Amino acid sequence: MKLSVIVIGDELLIGQVTDTNSGMIARKMAPYGWEVCYVQTVGDNAADISRAIESAFEQASVVITTGGLGPTKDDITKSVLCGIFGGRLVHDPMVTENINELARRRNFKMNVLTSAQAMVPSSCRVIQNKVGTAPIMWFERDNRVLVAMPGVPFETETMLAEAVMPMLLKRFPADVCIRHAVFLITGYTESALAEKIAAWEDALPPYLHLAYLPKPGLIRLRLDGIHADAGFITAKVALAADELKALLGKAVLACNDLAPAELLLNECRNKGVSLATAESCTGGNIAHELTLVSGASDVFMGGIVAYDNKVKEAVLGVGAKTLAENGAVSIPVVREMAAGALSATGASLSMSTSGIAGPGGGSDEKPVGTVCICARLNLDNSGTRFVEQFETFRFSGNRERIIDSATRSAIVMALRLLQENNY
Amino acid sequence: MKLSVIVIGDELLIGQVTDTNSGMIARKMAPYGWEVCYVQTVGDNAADISRAIESAFEQASVVITTGGLGPTKDDITKSVLCGIFGGRLVHDPMVTENINELARRRNFKMNVLTSAQAMVPSSCRVIQNKVGTAPIMWFERDNRVLVAMPGVPFETETMLAEAVMPMLLKRFPADVCIRHAVFLITGYTESALAEKIAAWEDALPPYLHLAYLPKPGLIRLRLDGIHADAGFITAKVALAADELKALLGKAVLACNDLAPAELLLNECRNKGVSLATAESCTGGNIAHELTLVSGASDVFMGGIVAYDNKVKEAVLGVGAKTLAENGAVSIPVVREMAAGALSATGASLSMSTSGIAGPGGGSDEKPVGTVCICARLNLDNSGTRFVEQFETFRFSGNRERIIDSATRSAIVMALRLLQENNY
Repeated sequence: MKLSVIVIGDELLIGQVTDTNSGMIARKMAPYGWEVCYVQTVGDNAADISRAIESAFEQASVVITTGGLGPTKDDITKSVLCGIFGGRLVHDPMVTENINELARRRNFKMNVLTSAQAMVPSSCRVIQNKVGTAPIMWFERDNRVLVAMPGVPFETETMLAEAVMPMLLKRFPADVCIRHAVFLITGYTESALAEKIAAWEDALPPYLHLAYLPKPGLIRLRLDGIHADAGFITAKVALAADELKALLGKAVLACNDLAPAELLLNECRNKGVSLATAESCTGGNIAHELTLVSGASDVFMGGIVAYDNKVKEAVLGVGAKTLAENGAVSIPVVREMAAGALSATGASLSMSTSGIAGPGGGSDEKPVGTVCICARLNLDNSGTRFVEQFETFRFSGNRERIIDSATRSAIVMALRLLQENNY
Repeated sequence: MKLSVIVIGDELLIGQVTDTNSGMIARKMAPYGWEVCYVQTVGDNAADISRAIESAFEQASVVITTGGLGPTKDDITKSVLCGIFGGRLVHDPMVTENINELARRRNFKMNVLTSAQAMVPSSCRVIQNKVGTAPIMWFERDNRVLVAMPGVPFETETMLAEAVMPMLLKRFPADVCIRHAVFLITGYTESALAEKIAAWEDALPPYLHLAYLPKPGLIRLRLDGIHADAGFITAKVALAADELKALLGKAVLACNDLAPAELLLNECRNKGVSLATAESCTGGNIAHELTLVSGASDVFMGGIVAYDNKVKEAVLGVGAKTLAENGAVSIPVVREMAAGALSATGASLSMSTSGIAGPGGGSDEKPVGTVCICARLNLDNSGTRFVEQFETFRFSGNRERIIDSATRSAIVMALRLLQENNY
């Protein structure tokens, strides 16, 4: 089933805000066999919005618009929708009630502008927005559907999952059955992995397709099967998945679609291990990734962001001599940081990072992208018996990408260490 | 002058890669009076690319395409361009020479795939790509121009600035002038702000336009002016900006387009103040936002992620009694955390957070979204003289959004505290 997305808003065209909604919609709908075939970005301008909707309907049965529904006056999408689908703007008391309920929960006042959001085209079916004030509107014409959604990514994502996606799947039932298997692979570059599994991949039948979703330090492989017969495709995907696991052995970190942080937290929870971080160049991002996962507090004790060397010494107990002799970006320093994180927090498993995220600070010997990472698991309470792993990486890309790569690599290193040691 | 961008690539439609080229082009061209009026994203498909080019030409005199020029077999843009602009693919020896030169510098081998890049439509003028292997192609038809650029953001940005932009500005001399002013506003919801400035906004002349870009805890307002007379519009935007500043007073946090983390780091740098964090519910995200800004190490000492109460006690020195009497999510606890962060790191200014990010952990008294935040500025080395600010917030949304809102609010609180106190 083909889907077209229209992203509405002057702020997108001038490059002040980057659209992430269209990609999110594509990723969420793909597992159900829906393909985003065309994305248009237009400003808050009636003629442009109208033309974009007509173009989208020429290419897809379903159009999702995001944005252009806020309470301020630059939002004119609703009157355009009246022009296309007929009807006129009418007051919907359920929207007012929904906004009042939100206002009570969030402690804000309903004013003339928020009440304007309760005006909706009489030609649409309203879907109440549980997480925002702009209602979602469902229109139909000539067996085609347009869903107008708000532009705030959190609202779009929540309401797509909770209301719009189930309604679309019901309105356009799938005529094929789709099955997936996902594998998280470490220790390979994309091209090395492609070479390793080339013979197996070339022999895949036409109803099975393999997609590579590489990130630095971790490649996600998704095997998609599509066939009219549910039993047949379920068996074929399972068989191919077993073959791939046998082929890649220990490089398979997990056979699911969880983030590395979630895998690590689950492994810690299963083994009764508590977790801590000691971060220099990742600057809190490892702790952030861990604490984005709900329930992290069961396992994650906390961490130290030791950006300045004084904090490495004072809070993590890194030796002044270790720093002076090796420099902050060194294996001896990250080893002491990992040990210090365990002492400071009382946790059993830690990750530490120290590196040069750039753009400044690089040298010939330690260029931008050089990151030392250590993972340490204490095997007794005193920390005299422990296992550890450490490595110096050289990541590429800009500052954000280097931080991201180092974060992922540290989490994977800690997970590997815990998987390989019966605690 | 109107400009339309077409972003080409299956990887964009499936949501694997997010387009940042169109926004970059808009930001770079805007100061010269060029407006991106329409952006389309299409897959590596001849019919879709062809249709997108025709649609773009209906609305703009200049079309820039990015992507679809790589050496792999799914890139078919060049033959589509031959179809539209005439001619056939011919070998350009200058492109081969350019690739050979790049290969020497970067130490890679020219293979069959890279040599295919030297084939270009005979109908185009080739612009040599100094930073990549795909040549840039300039086409003209009916007084309209299409420039086909590579998809790699670094290549597009470099070659736009160094070659394509100067050529476009020469080919289409400017007929209007555009000026912007940006304001970061705190302490208002979007609708309350709209109400506050409604009379002023309604009275804006047609050549001035105001746009709202809200995030929880911070609204960005952008005032755009467009006019043929540069002196006139510069003065009018400046005048309107002064009126808006007078109207909103202290709610204006800054008159620029920087992220709050960058504003705080700059303010600290200007005042010679060092910075630290003590995070519970934000879990390292404040430190992460700060350290994403390059050069943060000048100012940011580090922080403690005190997720577990034991870490709040052991590392930040929060009293067991304070925790027992008030609970972890309380003003007394965040006040002690903020003080503890300064003691542990030796910094002068700190932010602390403790709250319930959900989805679990809420109660009637402290529902999910409740976050206590404190900012503290030590006025002497001993910390006996200090100023502080604290507040209990109630944020809405999912876990990620609550963490994001708390992060922004903490950074804004610290910035406010520093702005309001001559240190």
